[in-house]
Amino acid sequence: MTNTTITAPRGFKAGAAACGIKSENKLDLAVLACDTRAACAACFTQNRVQAAPIQLSRDHVKEGYAQALVVNSGNANACTGPRGLDDAATMTQLVAGKLKISPRSVLVASTGVIGHPLDMAKVSNGVNHAYDNLGDTEDHGRAFAQAIMTTDLKPKSAYREFTVDNQTIRIAGCAKGSGMIAPNMATMLAFITTDAKIAPHDLRANLVQAVSRSFNRITVDGEMSTNDMVAVFASGLASDHELGETWLSPFGEYLYELCNELALAIVADGEGATKVFHVMVTAARNFTQAHKIARAVAQSLLVKTAIHGADPNWGRIISAAGAAGADFNPEQASCAIGNIVIFNRGTGADHDRDALADIMNKNDIWITLNLNHGEASDVVHSCDLSKQYVDINARYRT
Amino acid sequence: MTNTTITAPRGFKAGAAACGIKSENKLDLAVLACDTRAACAACFTQNRVQAAPIQLSRDHVKEGYAQALVVNSGNANACTGPRGLDDAATMTQLVAGKLKISPRSVLVASTGVIGHPLDMAKVSNGVNHAYDNLGDTEDHGRAFAQAIMTTDLKPKSAYREFTVDNQTIRIAGCAKGSGMIAPNMATMLAFITTDAKIAPHDLRANLVQAVSRSFNRITVDGEMSTNDMVAVFASGLASDHELGETWLSPFGEYLYELCNELALAIVADGEGATKVFHVMVTAARNFTQAHKIARAVAQSLLVKTAIHGADPNWGRIISAAGAAGADFNPEQASCAIGNIVIFNRGTGADHDRDALADIMNKNDIWITLNLNHGEASDVVHSCDLSKQYVDINARYRT
Repeated sequence: MTNTTITAPRGFKAGAAACGIKSENKLDLAVLACDTRAACAACFTQNRVQAAPIQLSRDHVKEGYAQALVVNSGNANACTGPRGLDDAATMTQLVAGKLKISPRSVLVASTGVIGHPLDMAKVSNGVNHAYDNLGDTEDHGRAFAQAIMTTDLKPKSAYREFTVDNQTIRIAGCAKGSGMIAPNMATMLAFITTDAKIAPHDLRANLVQAVSRSFNRITVDGEMSTNDMVAVFASGLASDHELGETWLSPFGEYLYELCNELALAIVADGEGATKVFHVMVTAARNFTQAHKIARAVAQSLLVKTAIHGADPNWGRIISAAGAAGADFNPEQASCAIGNIVIFNRGTGADHDRDALADIMNKNDIWITLNLNHGEASDVVHSCDLSKQYVDINARYRT
Repeated sequence: MTNTTITAPRGFKAGAAACGIKSENKLDLAVLACDTRAACAACFTQNRVQAAPIQLSRDHVKEGYAQALVVNSGNANACTGPRGLDDAATMTQLVAGKLKISPRSVLVASTGVIGHPLDMAKVSNGVNHAYDNLGDTEDHGRAFAQAIMTTDLKPKSAYREFTVDNQTIRIAGCAKGSGMIAPNMATMLAFITTDAKIAPHDLRANLVQAVSRSFNRITVDGEMSTNDMVAVFASGLASDHELGETWLSPFGEYLYELCNELALAIVADGEGATKVFHVMVTAARNFTQAHKIARAVAQSLLVKTAIHGADPNWGRIISAAGAAGADFNPEQASCAIGNIVIFNRGTGADHDRDALADIMNKNDIWITLNLNHGEASDVVHSCDLSKQYVDINARYRT
């Protein structure tokens, strides 16, 4: 079997270590290194409270290049003041020293509890071990994906490969998020490698578009973390020269597909989640209207609990849509669960109850709301709300 | 003991009946009637999907007067199309016929399941019985408060009385909401009576202000119903002539107090709630900033579960504030739980952990977030999120 981890694209090595930030000797620190000065783009959390590694990485990625990444799990290095910034900077310096590159060429990410300073002796040890373990096999890529997990139930990775102008281009990514048993760990991290030869500004444009159509289209509990980050590194080793304009569009499409696969994996591994559901709003007046309504329904606690209980409670769907803060006319709208229309032009629609019950008992459910207003549409992916979510988040003690 | 129900202000009678909309012979229909053509003002849900009674009452209250109200529980008469509008109109006609007034002088409200047509034979029967039972004693007022409940754990009522210019003015109210075992019943209804002599435009101004500072400052699960309604009726029988300007301000203050008491009672009786908490944002740049942040923290599932678990998890509070979509500088902000500062200028603050644990174990908790930006402030009241909430809303079958 071929390697489909983040070490699959040409030019990337990964190394992981268990340095004691997490308990039980679990992998909790990882380094990603590129043989070249890679084009790099990243998207960061919009939270006004931004963890130290976010602040530093945002600065380091400015010029569009980076050559390495260091990431730890178990501690978010958030709300840690000037000391936190120093610690994040030290992490980049430790890796830069090993790789003999500038600290500005290193991005840093952290995920875990908020408000506790990092134990830098452990981190320093971790960087040494991760560096010693650097390699480009499948096992190295898997260890990296493992090391960024907090209490996700499973590692999440995706891979795409395509050929343009007789050149094979590989894109690989891994993500963590939202499957956390301990809280304050709702951070979404995704790291993507590719060997495409692409200019930083093109890489950034493609990433922004892919992220807005994938990671920004999911919700587990409506919470945005202080540490969210998606970064892509492009080694350029797939070809000697930048490929023609024609390949940019397939690259963007595959990058989006990969991001979407990772995003859906995050929802499926959501805290306490037992089911995934998708809210599609069609025939909206504009994208904003479609998105607001899709998000409101996908985030509604009453809809999420109805999905959990396999109850085709369309009243909750329509009510949540109406409360979305986006004007629409319910007298024109219709709503379907799966392929069964359950609401039409302001009132309930006759339907086959047994067939609907079958759909509600599935683990993957589509809700479609047709506004009959215009041409725009959007979709938001979500998971059900179970007692386990409350258990997970109430039982924990800081 | 004196009567402190909605029949206490001079000129009001109430009657209730069990007409079989709800099971187990529970009170499910009630009529409120005023001896005079009362000044009347009402606030309605902002949901784009509005139940038939909301549409009708909004029209009937336009001129600022009303003389009666009919309300049923067990069925929301929402998403019921033209038939629902006809049924709501019939309810006002039935009551108007009995009281020999115009149907336009009757408001109508409904709460219960969405999407099912009312059984009008039962409703008609209920109106007859409620009319026959009309009276102005405490028992009559209590029966009314009982009849508007769906599965609230307890009836909620409040009373204020004050004297201006040697005239005693009474304000009484009752409310239902958010303590519902069956879903789609998250409707908030509140009805207020007063014998103040007040012009409709003054009544409306005072109600809007009181509602915005009370009912609009609470959240149980962030859901806004299709049927929410707050209405106040002023019989004018407290005095022969309209009181001077001086009394309007105490009237507004007492009306607000009464609304706030009812609003807090709704939160305390929230679905599955075991604790109440308040999020106060101070020193904000403006009211919008204060409100957005207070609401985001109050609605955060991670904060709500932390409160449930008595966990002083300030990371969740700060992260929710940062994600509120309101710009602020965490490096200037501080946060206290009760009187204990746990976050100061971007980082955790040393504090007495035992004292904090004592506060977290209380049933009523204040969170204060000082932004150190300006002079504005706001508060939002909320309750914890328990497994019972999920149970209540997932177990139910439509």
